[in-house]
Amino acid sequence: MLNHSPSLDLMFAALADGSRRSMVDRLSRGPATVKQLAEPLVMSLPAVLQHLRVLEESGLVRSAKSGRVRTCHLEPAALNAAEQWIADRRAEWLSRLDRLGDYLETPELDSEGDQS
Amino acid sequence: MLNHSPSLDLMFAALADGSRRSMVDRLSRGPATVKQLAEPLVMSLPAVLQHLRVLEESGLVRSAKSGRVRTCHLEPAALNAAEQWIADRRAEWLSRLDRLGDYLETPELDSEGDQS
Repeated sequence: MLNHSPSLDLMFAALADGSRRSMVDRLSRGPATVKQLAEPLVMSLPAVLQHLRVLEESGLVRSAKSGRVRTCHLEPAALNAAEQWIADRRAEWLSRLDRLGDYLETPELDSEGDQS
Repeated sequence: MLNHSPSLDLMFAALADGSRRSMVDRLSRGPATVKQLAEPLVMSLPAVLQHLRVLEESGLVRSAKSGRVRTCHLEPAALNAAEQWIADRRAEWLSRLDRLGDYLETPELDSEGDQS
């Protein structure tokens, strides 16, 4: 059941932090090295690496090391899973609203009497 | 800056738990009393109320008490804000992919020589 999905737990928890959202935002514009990710953030490199670890464990970000440089990129499929969970609930809510609208627009035959 | 939004912090943190997602899922199908929300969850009423408090503090859910019954409903605008943040990052990622595709399809004039 998608409501009890450890991966959704990790993804939403990963997104529940402004610094990590900044990193995801940066990576949505293309791959970046850890140094590039760290530049706009006012924090130590170990702190950046810790945030990166949380993002990687959630599946939202992947990284690979080439020589001494680690390059990170976004995993859009994971981002899509988180977005889809919310979108499905909003769609359900809106569809209920539509049904409620249809119901309220139905002529009240009982109160208007029988025309036969 | 939306990446550093305390309300997004709270919303994503609220969604990072399966029981709370179950409650949001239930409320997407219409308002529910606390008792109705608690029914499918294997936990004590105080635990349910604690999860409800987290959802209310995030703005995703509102509740009102009438007599002894507290009824909860979803706040779709808040759900939309969380969804939109993710959707914007995915859109940015996809638009970069499109630009990259256009670039790769551009004829390489330099390597094909000057035809004048």
